[in-house]
Amino acid sequence: MQSRGLAVHGANSPLVPFEFERRELGANDVSFDIAFAGICHSDIHQAREEWGPALFPMVPGHEIVGHVSATGSKVTKFAVGQRIGVGVFIDSCRTCDKCLAGLQQYCDNGMTPTYNALDSEGNVAMGGYSNTFVVNEDYAVHVPENLSLPGVAPLLCAGITLYSPLKHWGATSGSHVGVMGLGGLGHMGVKFAKALGATVTVFSHSPGKKADALLMGADHFVSTADPKELKNYESQFDLILNTVSANLEMNLYVKLLKVDGTLVAIGLPSKPYSINVGTLLTARRSVAGSQIGGIPETQEMLDFCGKHNIVSDVEVISADYANTAYDRTVASDVKYRFVIDGKTF
Amino acid sequence: MQSRGLAVHGANSPLVPFEFERRELGANDVSFDIAFAGICHSDIHQAREEWGPALFPMVPGHEIVGHVSATGSKVTKFAVGQRIGVGVFIDSCRTCDKCLAGLQQYCDNGMTPTYNALDSEGNVAMGGYSNTFVVNEDYAVHVPENLSLPGVAPLLCAGITLYSPLKHWGATSGSHVGVMGLGGLGHMGVKFAKALGATVTVFSHSPGKKADALLMGADHFVSTADPKELKNYESQFDLILNTVSANLEMNLYVKLLKVDGTLVAIGLPSKPYSINVGTLLTARRSVAGSQIGGIPETQEMLDFCGKHNIVSDVEVISADYANTAYDRTVASDVKYRFVIDGKTF
Repeated sequence: MQSRGLAVHGANSPLVPFEFERRELGANDVSFDIAFAGICHSDIHQAREEWGPALFPMVPGHEIVGHVSATGSKVTKFAVGQRIGVGVFIDSCRTCDKCLAGLQQYCDNGMTPTYNALDSEGNVAMGGYSNTFVVNEDYAVHVPENLSLPGVAPLLCAGITLYSPLKHWGATSGSHVGVMGLGGLGHMGVKFAKALGATVTVFSHSPGKKADALLMGADHFVSTADPKELKNYESQFDLILNTVSANLEMNLYVKLLKVDGTLVAIGLPSKPYSINVGTLLTARRSVAGSQIGGIPETQEMLDFCGKHNIVSDVEVISADYANTAYDRTVASDVKYRFVIDGKTF
Repeated sequence: MQSRGLAVHGANSPLVPFEFERRELGANDVSFDIAFAGICHSDIHQAREEWGPALFPMVPGHEIVGHVSATGSKVTKFAVGQRIGVGVFIDSCRTCDKCLAGLQQYCDNGMTPTYNALDSEGNVAMGGYSNTFVVNEDYAVHVPENLSLPGVAPLLCAGITLYSPLKHWGATSGSHVGVMGLGGLGHMGVKFAKALGATVTVFSHSPGKKADALLMGADHFVSTADPKELKNYESQFDLILNTVSANLEMNLYVKLLKVDGTLVAIGLPSKPYSINVGTLLTARRSVAGSQIGGIPETQEMLDFCGKHNIVSDVEVISADYANTAYDRTVASDVKYRFVIDGKTF
């Protein structure tokens, strides 16, 4: 199946137009026309080979939404014309206890990423910066009709990455949730935590984001430009989600947790966390990590978004703006996620 | 009430015989004759002022067991002659949500330690290295009659310190529990985890402790003399309790956790934990801390010990051996806890 998109041909190369073949539709596959593809910061890390050796040419993109164009003979979950979404992985072993529990993101044998990986047939998987996609129906999700489609694309990665820990650690009415960083990830955390009934506080080093944070539903905004400010919030939070990938002094934040509170790492900093053990001991605090979510929970998240009319705040761009968008994403100059219009590839 | 015991008069002074007054029996107080008092490594840290400024003269000791000698007019929980135990704290605010939930160890206003602290009347609290004790009945527990009394004393600190996290993080039949370090704390972790039905693995840098570990109920013993050995145990544990206060390369151990597994700090190292965030993210692992336990859980633990006939392995010493015992404790030369015979003060 002939496709057009954007690819990088090496770690120091820009995104350039690229034509390639996707596999023919298998019995359990769905093909779809891509409406929008989000630009995730991890796309940039991989395209620039900052996370280790990468497979080139690489078509990045794992926040993908579109409309079904064809279904394989055994497909039961989708029909032509329906909205469809694909996220960070397109396959997993399907047999380990994690896969059987719908936690494919933690598959014992390693999930298959949507790009920068070999698919089950040994071909390089090509991601969502393109006009079409082919995927096994088990690794795609339904998208509620009421949601504005451009803002849906980032839900497939940024959205589920925040929704999953909020649910896992029980954010609910009465919870006090902190969100560190108000970017592509953090702004989804604010929206979800608020919709779950929590009291939400944003910690950001950019005081200029206060108005946006409150508009998105945050109850409080704390500028971390002066770290001493944090002392006023000690022992107040049930759950803190750290979406910041900069290397922060984590003890200042762990202290903000109540007894039995948990700080969850979402962003991946270049250095390890340095955690004062006494800060953990004296209030049975936890520091944890979480990555994306499984297929059932991704569907649950999208249904939740449909019910609460939640989408990501996005800037829609055309394909020829993608390299500029990369630079602006690295500079945190985006409110709050770029999505590429699928018609422009 | 006249008492005899051992005190240190300064950070660089040895334990010496000491006579002092305990408060008169209040309406809600119980007095008791101390049968045995355990030597906890934290006694040494405080007596030597290694944990910050201390109150001298100091009578250490917070693993205390004895027999009730008198009860105040309003006491309902104890009768003269009964076994009684006191642990790490003798009071707390009683009004915060932690106290009301029986989690006095995390009291919002700070529990009152058994020594090296001022009691509610502003007097220096004197610990368990002595022949008598006076305590508010709400902060004392019952000791099952079937348990060998010397081995009970360490249950009041070392015991509850391991029991509480095992219960909190759900160690049960089918769980895989790791215990790092086989000392006063670790050996209680092995006994409790086994009695709870878990499969238990001991990690120790002392290969000579293997026989003891297996005798106590451990299913496996891993010598950490060669850290490469740990690679064989990755992703196998639901819960790991780190009782070691030496500064270890913690990532090697965090990797041993399964998806959703938790490593709990029990020991307090001099340096922060350095935690690789990717190791947390990729399997939703947690690193947490826990300290002692509340009064209700301490009673539950003692009842559990009574049912399973669990006590600490101890060396009973007389008071005049206490300074030597301190040195041997620092050198990890004790199997597995010293307890001072209360008749020898």
